[in-house]
Amino acid sequence: MTHYLVLGAGGMLGRKLVAALTGKLTLHDIVPPPAPPGAEVSSSDLSQPGEAERLVAGRPDVIYHLAAIVSGEAEADFEKGYRVNLDGTRHLLEAIRKVGGGYRPRLVFTSSLAVFGAPFPASIPDDFNLTPLSSYGTQKAIGELLVADYTRRGFIDGVGIRLPTICIRPGKPNKAASGFFSGILREPLNGMEAVLPVPETVRHWFASPRAAIGYLLHAGAMDTAALGGRRNLTMPGISATVADEIEALRRAAGDAAVALIRRVADPAVLAIVETWPERFDCTQALALGFKGDADFDEIVRIYQTDELAAG
Amino acid sequence: MTHYLVLGAGGMLGRKLVAALTGKLTLHDIVPPPAPPGAEVSSSDLSQPGEAERLVAGRPDVIYHLAAIVSGEAEADFEKGYRVNLDGTRHLLEAIRKVGGGYRPRLVFTSSLAVFGAPFPASIPDDFNLTPLSSYGTQKAIGELLVADYTRRGFIDGVGIRLPTICIRPGKPNKAASGFFSGILREPLNGMEAVLPVPETVRHWFASPRAAIGYLLHAGAMDTAALGGRRNLTMPGISATVADEIEALRRAAGDAAVALIRRVADPAVLAIVETWPERFDCTQALALGFKGDADFDEIVRIYQTDELAAG
Repeated sequence: MTHYLVLGAGGMLGRKLVAALTGKLTLHDIVPPPAPPGAEVSSSDLSQPGEAERLVAGRPDVIYHLAAIVSGEAEADFEKGYRVNLDGTRHLLEAIRKVGGGYRPRLVFTSSLAVFGAPFPASIPDDFNLTPLSSYGTQKAIGELLVADYTRRGFIDGVGIRLPTICIRPGKPNKAASGFFSGILREPLNGMEAVLPVPETVRHWFASPRAAIGYLLHAGAMDTAALGGRRNLTMPGISATVADEIEALRRAAGDAAVALIRRVADPAVLAIVETWPERFDCTQALALGFKGDADFDEIVRIYQTDELAAG
Repeated sequence: MTHYLVLGAGGMLGRKLVAALTGKLTLHDIVPPPAPPGAEVSSSDLSQPGEAERLVAGRPDVIYHLAAIVSGEAEADFEKGYRVNLDGTRHLLEAIRKVGGGYRPRLVFTSSLAVFGAPFPASIPDDFNLTPLSSYGTQKAIGELLVADYTRRGFIDGVGIRLPTICIRPGKPNKAASGFFSGILREPLNGMEAVLPVPETVRHWFASPRAAIGYLLHAGAMDTAALGGRRNLTMPGISATVADEIEALRRAAGDAAVALIRRVADPAVLAIVETWPERFDCTQALALGFKGDADFDEIVRIYQTDELAAG
């Protein structure tokens, strides 16, 4: 039976991943994550000495490292971002290395589009330079480099996956700059008003939560021989404009739903969003068996099926 | 008077840089570096707590960070490489950040072609991905990311320069895989035999020590506004094959010198060298005022003038 260690198991993706895994489960987060019966659960600050060692002592076969301080917080609290996102990742890698005795687990590292920074070409290739424009993106880019080097040295069998912006993100509205991409669909689908702070021409790169979990599962099980030395991959996504989102909402829920979107321009949000990537060339990830959403209509349907219908 | 802090002041480039600087000098290395009269000298392990703080307490205007464990040693001693090349750099950046009071020195970070990894396009553009194939290259790539983020956050005014392979490197033969590129010229120019372990078709990217010092001086004095957020640049070089090197030697010192090159194929050296880059597109660095060598003949002449004639 495969032994999985999931770090950041209490987050949105962590909880969905845990629900999809079959095997022995060790779950960890900064506060105790929800867990299915039989799972081993612990909570602590992974950046503190000894914590990573304790977690890998049981020699899990597959480690999912989803734990991170998010973009806005890493920018607001410089020291905390580096401590959790960089030192935490490094402590984990060092703890694995020091287990020794031929221990070489699969490590799946969730990276981010934030490793890239404008100016961009129309479609960003896999070999595009990492020039993050946030401390969060810098910390994720450093994580990618460490995953590649620790893999090359034989300490782990690592795969870093850069997840698209998750859409439609379930749950309550939040204040993230990217929040409206989900909000303008989620709130109307729940009969509530939503604010759109940017023009409909804004384009971005999306994947459903279901597609993201598929990427995580595939990264944990795939044959990594085909990756060679390049261990970090941009995951498939749907490149869509806000107008594309709105038309998908109209097809799924009609004009009444679309009428719940209120346009309130926010130049501060636009200034952030304008530096984000719009489209990636994911030929490599697709060839390696990562399967994305079919189109934006499917992204909306997945929310209706997995969240609305499931209550 | 500009106050310069040079870390790694005892190395080949460090010593030449110190000789070229005019101002107040604080020099540091793991062992006491040679110093001109009036310079302040100290030696310690920069990766030890408190050392970086002590060095930046005098608020130097320009900091040259040349201190590093070289490629071969970082590969042979994993922990030492990360401690010196990653932790040392991070301690330095953190020490600068914590000075506070608006302190924002120019920091010149010497990076390396080792941040790049094969496969390469014929000419590597500035926006090519960093996929190092060594721990040294990984540590330098992480340093580049940190320099960019600390600059963006306003803690330093950083410039990272990726130096070409220095040729003709003065001094004694060494066991570095790249050693023969200099050795096949330096030893014959000194009337000694040299071993060539690879075919004459091998191509690489070179700069003279004099050009490298010019890059360091320019990076320390340039207007960084034109760099924007992309703070790390590949420096101009001469793309030359081993055959090009040999013909330059013949023009400078005749057939007798060329006859001192002994061909002894070493597949292990070839295997390493084959993964190295051959040519870069340095449009950006040239536009920013970095001036390289004219051609390989000049590289040979600089050795004859600066090393042989100078004794």
